[in-house]
Amino acid sequence: MKSEETLFSLYEEERKFRDLHLHLDMTRGKPCPEQLQLSEAMASLPLPFDHKTEEGTDLRNYGNPYGLIEAKRLMGSLVHVTDTDRIFILGNSSLETMFSVINHAYIRGFLGDKPWKDLPEAKWLCPVPGYDRHFGITEYFGIKMINVPLLPTGPDMDVVEHLVSSDPSIKGIWCVPKFSNPSGYVYSDETVRRMAALRPAAKDFRVFWDNAYFVHDLEEPFIEIPEILSLADQAGNPNMVIEFLSTSKITFPGSGISAILSSKENLEDFSSSIKIETIGFDKMNQMRHVLFLKDREHTLEHMRKHAEILRPKFELVAKILRESLADFASWTSPKGGYFVALHVEGCAKEIIAHCRELGVNFTKEGAAFPYGVDIENSTIRIAPTLPSLDELKTAMEVLCCVTKIETLKHRGLAK
Amino acid sequence: MKSEETLFSLYEEERKFRDLHLHLDMTRGKPCPEQLQLSEAMASLPLPFDHKTEEGTDLRNYGNPYGLIEAKRLMGSLVHVTDTDRIFILGNSSLETMFSVINHAYIRGFLGDKPWKDLPEAKWLCPVPGYDRHFGITEYFGIKMINVPLLPTGPDMDVVEHLVSSDPSIKGIWCVPKFSNPSGYVYSDETVRRMAALRPAAKDFRVFWDNAYFVHDLEEPFIEIPEILSLADQAGNPNMVIEFLSTSKITFPGSGISAILSSKENLEDFSSSIKIETIGFDKMNQMRHVLFLKDREHTLEHMRKHAEILRPKFELVAKILRESLADFASWTSPKGGYFVALHVEGCAKEIIAHCRELGVNFTKEGAAFPYGVDIENSTIRIAPTLPSLDELKTAMEVLCCVTKIETLKHRGLAK
Repeated sequence: MKSEETLFSLYEEERKFRDLHLHLDMTRGKPCPEQLQLSEAMASLPLPFDHKTEEGTDLRNYGNPYGLIEAKRLMGSLVHVTDTDRIFILGNSSLETMFSVINHAYIRGFLGDKPWKDLPEAKWLCPVPGYDRHFGITEYFGIKMINVPLLPTGPDMDVVEHLVSSDPSIKGIWCVPKFSNPSGYVYSDETVRRMAALRPAAKDFRVFWDNAYFVHDLEEPFIEIPEILSLADQAGNPNMVIEFLSTSKITFPGSGISAILSSKENLEDFSSSIKIETIGFDKMNQMRHVLFLKDREHTLEHMRKHAEILRPKFELVAKILRESLADFASWTSPKGGYFVALHVEGCAKEIIAHCRELGVNFTKEGAAFPYGVDIENSTIRIAPTLPSLDELKTAMEVLCCVTKIETLKHRGLAK
Repeated sequence: MKSEETLFSLYEEERKFRDLHLHLDMTRGKPCPEQLQLSEAMASLPLPFDHKTEEGTDLRNYGNPYGLIEAKRLMGSLVHVTDTDRIFILGNSSLETMFSVINHAYIRGFLGDKPWKDLPEAKWLCPVPGYDRHFGITEYFGIKMINVPLLPTGPDMDVVEHLVSSDPSIKGIWCVPKFSNPSGYVYSDETVRRMAALRPAAKDFRVFWDNAYFVHDLEEPFIEIPEILSLADQAGNPNMVIEFLSTSKITFPGSGISAILSSKENLEDFSSSIKIETIGFDKMNQMRHVLFLKDREHTLEHMRKHAEILRPKFELVAKILRESLADFASWTSPKGGYFVALHVEGCAKEIIAHCRELGVNFTKEGAAFPYGVDIENSTIRIAPTLPSLDELKTAMEVLCCVTKIETLKHRGLAK
């Protein structure tokens, strides 16, 4: 990109986009209608004639607040956890479960430890870039968030180990171990092992293992990360890890089921708050999921259908970025999950604003960072799943055109 | 009950019950299977072909975290609230919504007021006897609960007005205005009007109007209590009342939908917490309810079917109590709801323990009181809905026999 002529053609292209009066939403990682269609049969699935669960509960009535054993078995099988005593099945939002667990620690304290509301300070490690809604929760509780670099192998474990072992006010870390949001990185086996073997200064330090994209691979063979709960047991940390799963992007966002996996002791402790908070979760929806997804094998088969729909979208994003931005930016190439992270030269905010002006909305700048502050002003989250291929192509072309213009401006080569 | 002979026959009867080795659960207000069957068609109802709501949201996807307008209209119509801006539709548990609202006040504070966690003391008025799970929530947050007498016309408003207007640390009151749990009392029009017109010393005082049994009448015509939100508006208290509804006992417990109705300002304030807490609620289930219950008229028709199933059970309870306990106890005669309150002579605990010994479980003594303390040891909650008529008859006969024995003991007339 060297000449005045090129710059002229970029502005030409930009004007053409402007004239299209676009309205494209690339802000959130939503499944597309074709994906939702894959679970259509589940929506009106007839429930068992006698409405009884294996344990004799009437699905339709009160009772069984910690979930159906059938659903525990299904969700556990997907991450190789067989002990159903270590699993609760809850409502439709795993985010709500994470909020509840922190709320429990804040008001009651973990396992008899001091409630976090009574501490002079509580801190939290946030691998960045990360998930805005995670940071929203910790910010809500006034927990001080500390950025930790997220490498392609996961959080920088040298930093994590040092901080966690030296500062007892550090109470947790947000982790999305497989296809992290937004980078799409998968934690290496070594990272998982080191995470499970941390020696925290705080007894009530917890690893929040948000395995949001645990079976959301785009390519075969599906990636397996080590099962962290048993590793933590072996490392003498039976209560340190809390894993979260949900079917929001397997079946229906908003109408899925979620699971929490941890030690039996942690779950019992947490239940002292759950039983005050709610009368129970939707067991009929749990049973719908059991009947529809059946078991590990059927669920993976179902996820392959999601992959077939999503793979062309991720390939298109990669192709357009490669062809357009090689001299301007870098980006991640995830093999699953819902996002691609684009890293630009200190002008992310300007690019996002410029795209918005052209009718293409990306997630707000800084969203992938605690307190919304991307100090390098460099990360843009691309969410390729919701738009059609045509819309995605247009949105990516706008993004690339604008990225080139704004980067040239940033370099002092354009105005 | 005057002679030794009678006492002898009571012990005879008691021995017969003992020999039956009963296992009867009268502890919770659960619908019976015949009631659940009434909503059977809803469970596998086909959703709209295009999955779109009136406002264009895809039911199956993320979005619309405060509920479908169709569901707002339905739930609002049942309590004569037409302004859908004053209604949120949430998850399956109205109890969870109440918890969330108090959690919001505790951590964030209402409308910019001081968070309750930072107050030296917060207090709450609890009309007694009342609902154990309400008291569980306020106790969880360390809010000091103050008993207020519940009269057949509702809470003693002289007491409520005096306390609320004089003590700024009083932050709320639990109300079940129609068919209160466990007495089954309906607040009089005057009580509702006085409640709406309170002059609280605390700006962030809130009436928690848990209208749990709002269309759960046993007899025609259905009772209408005044619509409190508009009364509060007229009294200059637009933000003072928060009303809660749920379909748990209209369709399926655990798989229903809940609603919160208040001022637009309160809902906006509350949404600042909801949007952190969850990604949204189950809109597919909201639409199922809209399609199945349709409107006010259909819902009331549906509730008449519930009434037909429940009326004989409440009549049986009343008949047995009348025939057996006229000289021993008093009780309430509700025209709806899920409970009957039995008031005995200072031996509720002994009666409940004795019944348990005979295999008939009633709700734990004191459950209807804050901190589980029934100082008069006099209230027993009867939940007639779940058991069959035969089981209910047996349970009531056991209860009456035991009540007579224990009352005679309490009077010093038996050992």
